[in-house]
Amino acid sequence: MTGWFTDLLPPVAFTGSPLDRADSLRRDEAAMVAVRRDPAARWLVLDDLRPVVDGDALRWFARDAVPADAPSVFLGLADGAPRFAVAATGLGTAGDPRGVAAALAAGPTRGDAAIYAHARSLLDWHARHGFCATCAAPTRVAKAGYERICDACGAHHFPRTDPVVIMLALLDANGEELALVGRQPRFPRRFLSALAGFVEPGESLEEAVRRELFEEAGIVTADVRYVASQPWPFPSQLMIGCLARATGTGALTIDGEELEEARWVSKSEVRAALAGAGDWIAPPPLAIARTLLATWVNERHADNPEPLP
Amino acid sequence: MTGWFTDLLPPVAFTGSPLDRADSLRRDEAAMVAVRRDPAARWLVLDDLRPVVDGDALRWFARDAVPADAPSVFLGLADGAPRFAVAATGLGTAGDPRGVAAALAAGPTRGDAAIYAHARSLLDWHARHGFCATCAAPTRVAKAGYERICDACGAHHFPRTDPVVIMLALLDANGEELALVGRQPRFPRRFLSALAGFVEPGESLEEAVRRELFEEAGIVTADVRYVASQPWPFPSQLMIGCLARATGTGALTIDGEELEEARWVSKSEVRAALAGAGDWIAPPPLAIARTLLATWVNERHADNPEPLP
Repeated sequence: MTGWFTDLLPPVAFTGSPLDRADSLRRDEAAMVAVRRDPAARWLVLDDLRPVVDGDALRWFARDAVPADAPSVFLGLADGAPRFAVAATGLGTAGDPRGVAAALAAGPTRGDAAIYAHARSLLDWHARHGFCATCAAPTRVAKAGYERICDACGAHHFPRTDPVVIMLALLDANGEELALVGRQPRFPRRFLSALAGFVEPGESLEEAVRRELFEEAGIVTADVRYVASQPWPFPSQLMIGCLARATGTGALTIDGEELEEARWVSKSEVRAALAGAGDWIAPPPLAIARTLLATWVNERHADNPEPLP
Repeated sequence: MTGWFTDLLPPVAFTGSPLDRADSLRRDEAAMVAVRRDPAARWLVLDDLRPVVDGDALRWFARDAVPADAPSVFLGLADGAPRFAVAATGLGTAGDPRGVAAALAAGPTRGDAAIYAHARSLLDWHARHGFCATCAAPTRVAKAGYERICDACGAHHFPRTDPVVIMLALLDANGEELALVGRQPRFPRRFLSALAGFVEPGESLEEAVRRELFEEAGIVTADVRYVASQPWPFPSQLMIGCLARATGTGALTIDGEELEEARWVSKSEVRAALAGAGDWIAPPPLAIARTLLATWVNERHADNPEPLP
């Protein structure tokens, strides 16, 4: 095989967890009892889904420091030592989730942001899924936090991960390649990013990319190329980053609801924005949209594998 | 950009829907009333989730031929004519879902399999999500079938699509490249396919590929390359097909629960199996696992773009 691509990319935030998820332990209730009693076991505390931290690293609590009856999930093993997450309040400093996540991702142990994403998505799912959607009965936690079972109707419910496509359309404008960026109504002023949308039932991710670019900006695309993916824990998305080649003139029809503004930008404009010196604001390092923009301006692919400067 | 990959692949089953999903209509209740009354509107009938067909094509019903009060969803527009799906019984021939899907995908209008996937995933989701998982109150359908709203607690619920990674590990064995295939306990005897598993909260798809290969077969991989994706409507997965490069000796440790057997196979063995002349049975054309195997044996990538024979 040629053309391996993944290793050429800068690291994506919320990836790189050092934990072994140890799936086989989850299914073994006796083993899980022992794992919880392991003196080396430690708990991450989420206070209203915000992580309790020490500076720019997660803070880990011993078992008797956290409430025994609070909702908790098994995260995995760190060099053999069990790690859990628990929902509890008043145990330490818990900052704004995105600010803390950005600090963790940029800190000495960037895998901490991935651990937080893992813990947050699971605990948030439990908090919002106490009842069976099929029959309305209460459900109970199973498999160390990776399942909820309805004893009334027998339904098994699993944590939810929603695939989202996020993409740059690329346009050949008289030999110069341009990329499409846009602003959602909820974005700050002057902030522009890649377009994005949820993958719907019954479509491939390539079809989702083409549909979203057409719905939001009126752009028809022919080829779709996968670049990278990212878990996004607000609340639980899988971001799938792509490039797509526009086939028409590039004339834009903005839908006004999901997108308020969109424009074609050059590589030099993107380089300036990434350096904080443009007339628009690029997405922050936490966002895979920034990875897409950096990948594109640096022409990072199998035929040009030099590392980023 | 070089290395565009998608167009080099054989078509994947359940992709290629000819419908415009017309998302902007869904949000407009007045428009949807008019769309339902359009004389050109047609309904696809799912009988216990099985599609009603005419031979190897979907059968479309006029509005007064289907029950007005049955659960239905808006699928989109076919050349401007509205298309819906409705759950109803006794209106025609409805065969085994996978058999019918295979016939549709191989038939003259292969997009019919994609329309069925779209309809089935949505109607199945409604059938199993009548209540709010957050507060247990009944929910009501909104946005033409793409949302359920809980008026008791205000929660909005959306159709579920579960990302699944499906992959071939590749091993360099004295200069010959081998691929890993395995048999799940539920598979027929002699049937071997790509390994697969659900993406979990808090991991990228590359991390999910590497975790599943290690959990199920004890194989450590270094690079992951995306190949293609596929919606899979049993009940509502997004299959994400990848290749991954094994770094070790290829010694297998089978988990026994998710996998009963696994083996490294050569390209000539795979070619024989794809032709129906091997000592094992390859996945059918409906499965993206077959696309992965065909992609690998034909070395289909940007540097070797000749079409399949």
